[in-house]
Amino acid sequence: MDFIRRETLRTGLRRVVVGASGGIDSAVVLALAVRALGPRSVLAALLPYRTSSPSSLRDARALIRRLRCPSVESEITPLVDAYFHSRPDADRLRRGNMMARQRMAFLYDLSADRRALVLGTSNKTELLLGYGTIHGDLASALNPVGDLYKTQLRQLARHLRIPPRILSKVPSADLYPGQTDERELGFTYARVDRLLYLLVDLRGRREDAIRCGFARPMVDDVLRRIRASQYKRVMPLIAKVSDRTVGVDFRYPRDWGI
Amino acid sequence: MDFIRRETLRTGLRRVVVGASGGIDSAVVLALAVRALGPRSVLAALLPYRTSSPSSLRDARALIRRLRCPSVESEITPLVDAYFHSRPDADRLRRGNMMARQRMAFLYDLSADRRALVLGTSNKTELLLGYGTIHGDLASALNPVGDLYKTQLRQLARHLRIPPRILSKVPSADLYPGQTDERELGFTYARVDRLLYLLVDLRGRREDAIRCGFARPMVDDVLRRIRASQYKRVMPLIAKVSDRTVGVDFRYPRDWGI
Repeated sequence: MDFIRRETLRTGLRRVVVGASGGIDSAVVLALAVRALGPRSVLAALLPYRTSSPSSLRDARALIRRLRCPSVESEITPLVDAYFHSRPDADRLRRGNMMARQRMAFLYDLSADRRALVLGTSNKTELLLGYGTIHGDLASALNPVGDLYKTQLRQLARHLRIPPRILSKVPSADLYPGQTDERELGFTYARVDRLLYLLVDLRGRREDAIRCGFARPMVDDVLRRIRASQYKRVMPLIAKVSDRTVGVDFRYPRDWGI
Repeated sequence: MDFIRRETLRTGLRRVVVGASGGIDSAVVLALAVRALGPRSVLAALLPYRTSSPSSLRDARALIRRLRCPSVESEITPLVDAYFHSRPDADRLRRGNMMARQRMAFLYDLSADRRALVLGTSNKTELLLGYGTIHGDLASALNPVGDLYKTQLRQLARHLRIPPRILSKVPSADLYPGQTDERELGFTYARVDRLLYLLVDLRGRREDAIRCGFARPMVDDVLRRIRASQYKRVMPLIAKVSDRTVGVDFRYPRDWGI
C-alpha cells in the first residue's frame, strides 16, 4: 500500500488504472490500490472479449461496486476481430496475445486521458514462468504483486476479504472458453510455487529440487520456461557501441548524478 | 551486423521482422539486417495509417525492392479508427501513441506467425529524450541502432548507401500530417546530439553544458525530458517483498547460475 502511494505520487500523478478481469490477481491489486489511494483515485477498466466468461465479468462488476471505485467498460472485440478477419488461420496463442495487447493499448490510452498510472497484476509465478504476453498483460508502470507467488497472493486475497466467488475460482487467463492455467501449464500452482521458491528464492540447484522430490521432467520444464521467457523480463537488447548505453551503463537514477 | 546475427541465432530463430516507415532509422536497420542475415531472412512490414505520407510509403517500397527482402503491407487504419470512433476528442498525442501500439501488436503477431524477431529502430537521441511510445515503437527484441545518436545514424546511412531520397528527408514520426521531429522537440538533432553527448557520454554537468555555450532553457528542457521519460527505459517497478525479486536481484542470465 505504501509502495502504491509513494511510487504513484513520485510520478506526479495521483490516480491509477487497473484492468479488472474478475480474477483474483486484479482483485487484489484493485483492493490494495483502493486502500492506498482511496476509491475515487482508482479507475477499474473492464475490457472483455466476446468469448470472455460472463460470470467473471459479473464478479468484476460486483467487486467494483463493493470497492466503490469508478469504472469504465468497453469490449475489445471489434479491434481483435477486425485484425483476425483476414487471418482466420491464427491459432489460440496469437489470438490471446492480441487480446492482451489490445487491452494494454486501451489501458495506456486511458492512462493518458485520465492522468492515471497503469498498475500491473502479474504475479511472481507468472513472471518467472513467462506465463503472460509481453507488451500485453505484462506491461505496467507499477506492479504491486509481482513479488508474490500465486499461493501467497491467494493468502493476501483472503486477508483483504476478496469475495469468495473470486477466491474460489479456478485460475484462468480466460483467453478462450474452458482455458485453465493449471491444465495449460501442466502442474498446479501449489506445486510449482514450492519448486520456484526452492530454485529462485533459496537458490537451489536442479539436483536439490530432484532430491526434494520434484519429478525430473517438471524441474527441467520449469527451468526451460524460466530461461526461454527471459526476454519478457528485460528491456530490448541494444547493440553497444559507445561508452554509455541506455539500459547497460546508463540507468538513471542510479547512474545519473547530474 | 555481427550483433544482429549472433543475438538472433542465440534465440533459436533465424529471421527478423522490421517495421519500415520510409524514414532513415528503419532504412538503416533493414539494410544492416539484410547484410547480417541475407535478404530472405528479413521481413519488412509496411503499416501505414490513412494520414501517413504517401511519398514515405513509396520510399519504403523502393528501398525494399532494392534490398530484395520480402515484405507485407497492411493498413492500421481500421483498428485505430475503430478505437477513436467513440472518442472523437482524443488529442494528437493519444492518437499517435495508439498508432504506434497497433503497429507493435501487428509486428509481434507477425513475429509469432513467421518465427522472426522484432528489431527495434529507436536511436539513442529518441531513447534518451523519451521521444517514442512505450509498448509501441520503443518495443523490440533487439535494437541494433539504440546506441547511435541521430547524427551518427545519418553517417552510417550514407555508408550503407541508403537512397538519397530517404537520406535527405526531414525527420518525422509521421503521426499527423506536417509533423516534424525538430519542430516538435524545439531544437535540431545536430544541436541536441552534441548536448546529449556532453551530458551522457562525457558525464558533463548542467553547468558544463552552459559553459560550452548551450542555452540554459535548452539544457534544462533536455534534462527534464531525460528524467521524465525514465519510465520508458525500464521494466515495471515491482514492490519488493522477498529476497529475490524479478528485475531487482533476479536478472538471469547474470544471476542465474543453475
